[in-house]
Amino acid sequence: MNAGATPFVPIHDLAAACRDAGIVIAGLPTAVKADVLAAMAGRIEQRSQEILAANALDVEAARSSGQAAALIDRLRLDSSRLAGVAAGIRAIASQPDPVGRVTQRETRPNGIRIERARIPLGLIAMIYEARPNVTADAAALCFHAGNSVLLRGGSEALQSNRAIALALREALQVHGLPVAAITLVEDLGRETMMQLLQLHDLVDLAIPRGGEGLIRFVAEHARVPVIKHYRGVCHLYVDRAADPDVALHLLIDGKTTRPAVCNALETLLVHADVAAQFLPRAAAALRVRGVELRGCARSRAIVADMIAAGDDDYAAEFLDLIIAVRVVDDIDAAIAHIRRFGSDHTEVIATRDEAAAARFIGALRSAVVMVNASSRFSDGGELGLGAEIGISTTRLHAYGPMGADALTIERYVIRGSGQVRHPQSAA
Amino acid sequence: MNAGATPFVPIHDLAAACRDAGIVIAGLPTAVKADVLAAMAGRIEQRSQEILAANALDVEAARSSGQAAALIDRLRLDSSRLAGVAAGIRAIASQPDPVGRVTQRETRPNGIRIERARIPLGLIAMIYEARPNVTADAAALCFHAGNSVLLRGGSEALQSNRAIALALREALQVHGLPVAAITLVEDLGRETMMQLLQLHDLVDLAIPRGGEGLIRFVAEHARVPVIKHYRGVCHLYVDRAADPDVALHLLIDGKTTRPAVCNALETLLVHADVAAQFLPRAAAALRVRGVELRGCARSRAIVADMIAAGDDDYAAEFLDLIIAVRVVDDIDAAIAHIRRFGSDHTEVIATRDEAAAARFIGALRSAVVMVNASSRFSDGGELGLGAEIGISTTRLHAYGPMGADALTIERYVIRGSGQVRHPQSAA
Repeated sequence: MNAGATPFVPIHDLAAACRDAGIVIAGLPTAVKADVLAAMAGRIEQRSQEILAANALDVEAARSSGQAAALIDRLRLDSSRLAGVAAGIRAIASQPDPVGRVTQRETRPNGIRIERARIPLGLIAMIYEARPNVTADAAALCFHAGNSVLLRGGSEALQSNRAIALALREALQVHGLPVAAITLVEDLGRETMMQLLQLHDLVDLAIPRGGEGLIRFVAEHARVPVIKHYRGVCHLYVDRAADPDVALHLLIDGKTTRPAVCNALETLLVHADVAAQFLPRAAAALRVRGVELRGCARSRAIVADMIAAGDDDYAAEFLDLIIAVRVVDDIDAAIAHIRRFGSDHTEVIATRDEAAAARFIGALRSAVVMVNASSRFSDGGELGLGAEIGISTTRLHAYGPMGADALTIERYVIRGSGQVRHPQSAA
Repeated sequence: MNAGATPFVPIHDLAAACRDAGIVIAGLPTAVKADVLAAMAGRIEQRSQEILAANALDVEAARSSGQAAALIDRLRLDSSRLAGVAAGIRAIASQPDPVGRVTQRETRPNGIRIERARIPLGLIAMIYEARPNVTADAAALCFHAGNSVLLRGGSEALQSNRAIALALREALQVHGLPVAAITLVEDLGRETMMQLLQLHDLVDLAIPRGGEGLIRFVAEHARVPVIKHYRGVCHLYVDRAADPDVALHLLIDGKTTRPAVCNALETLLVHADVAAQFLPRAAAALRVRGVELRGCARSRAIVADMIAAGDDDYAAEFLDLIIAVRVVDDIDAAIAHIRRFGSDHTEVIATRDEAAAARFIGALRSAVVMVNASSRFSDGGELGLGAEIGISTTRLHAYGPMGADALTIERYVIRGSGQVRHPQSAA
């Protein structure tokens, strides 16, 4: 079998072969998986010329079709980014193997010994958009956790994804493993994606990552389990008891260091008692960094020349140098605002009042709640997961940054010596 | 507000009120929840006359409409079963509170402190059939785990479910809690269930429990996350190295002590080397207990008068005193059979060979794998969960018996002292 991609196979057959390959991958010892991951990183480096050439075709096509600069930036690889991809695969290989990890051991009164141990999920369908590095990250993370993966990327990155997948599959082939364990879907029609999303007997989990339109499409049409990686409408609430310097640092870091990512801040909520002191400093610091402020009437009474904010602004994931601002009467009003407009991603409170922090943590059910720390830490790498396949905003299975553990599931292994439930009947 | 049920409210409004009530329930201290659960058990006992009278109406209606005896048995309550329901609620109250349980604590090099702690899922839609005790079990378990619940039972149990829900809601009301946290859906039309399954902004999880038709309907139509509690096609594989007495005990206990439940055995696989010794004993022991055997050609060559088994028999969940039998060449053939016909519920190997046991455990990915122990232990109570809301055969979030823990999710709580990701930019 060729390590290259297989464009003309029906999606059902691609998925069936991928699922079967997954049975082999599920049983691999940790050391073998580490060797294969090292080989994957090596192949990415060896094939860097071809990958960059393929990527240049994608970038050129995106340019000539008039795509936005932000999309082209996400799409573009260079030797430094590609080195980062290879380093990322090696980092995944160095992480603990989640498969087989025992999370509970207990002996019952009747002598049966119970273990809960993790096994792979099976076949994961990764559905994503422009970034070609997701191809390598997702494939490596799924492989590390013993899963096979169907990669359905965006059409704008097809050449890049094909070159990367080829390199990864060569590493499987060299180790005598079924290359179908990493399968790139090249038929990118919506009809084929619809079919893919119906394959509930083959696909154990679909993970959509990308714009709201893509995620909605997947959620609407899936008959397979879906973990959504949705909008990050992240809030910073500056409490009455906030350290103003800390609050300002969190605000600038959260809003300006990388506004296009999901853990960037979108809304600033300020307690009314400190708004007159805090907002002018905040507005000056943001404006000098090019941030546009859109505020409520009370914040506009404090800061001149602020655009009026409406509900749409409070619900928006700007992904840009824009921030919505609101003065709130108290922490309960801040919580109510976040419950109404938030996306369950990441919320931050700046406060020196432990009771306020506890109330904020207790009342909100977002995936990540921070006290006096930047929303930008809401990231698998920053939280010690090594790598992440995304940040789940689905409150099921995995919530927040998802690492290799979240690509496995606990099951029960019971060992006995002939115990039965009704000894008198079985005798 | 009246503690009684609310039959004429649109399902969206019922769900919205239930969701809002859940926010209150999510924040309750453990001790308050224990008090309320004790009150629920007490109300079930105080209202036992009304509940049994309501149940008698359901049973009478089922009888006069010619329902099967098995359904009527599942439907019927008596004072002993009702005492069991109250005891079950008290047992749930005595279990550890999963909400707030910290599963990980770590301090990162930059000083931020990471905690992973469990929060409730939110609103759970329980969709089930005849057994009215599920109304109390599910409501109590969801409440213990800080969730609100929409209970959509079967029409045949409506009077019973209404009486039980009334008792439970009275316990909420007495404690000043919103009774909508436990909401019985009384409009049992398929159209209303369809609408319920579309409410992805309100319903965090749907748990269907019942026959295959119901579960398929839910899986087909849901736009909300679903954890299926599907068929239990459980296998016993008698290995070449099995202790024959142990194997026989596991077989009789697994097949005959309660054939209508999902952890009963449906198929017996026997290694060819021991089939001539084991099968005649097994057949005799099963037949004396009224079990019908359906076998492959090789097993029929050993045991006379066995009906021929086809693929349908190997795929069947008989839920009755019937067992499918197959002689297999070796453990790999047993594993291949289970992979093909199994339902990922529970599989048992009888063997004294540790390598064979390890191979069986490693090659199968069912929710529960047993070595020398009865499939009938695949049950939340037997495995120490205290109570179960069902046995998940969905390899996501929860797999196997689901207790209160499985009705919560881990999220991240991060505490810092002003840490930012890019200190130089934020300064």
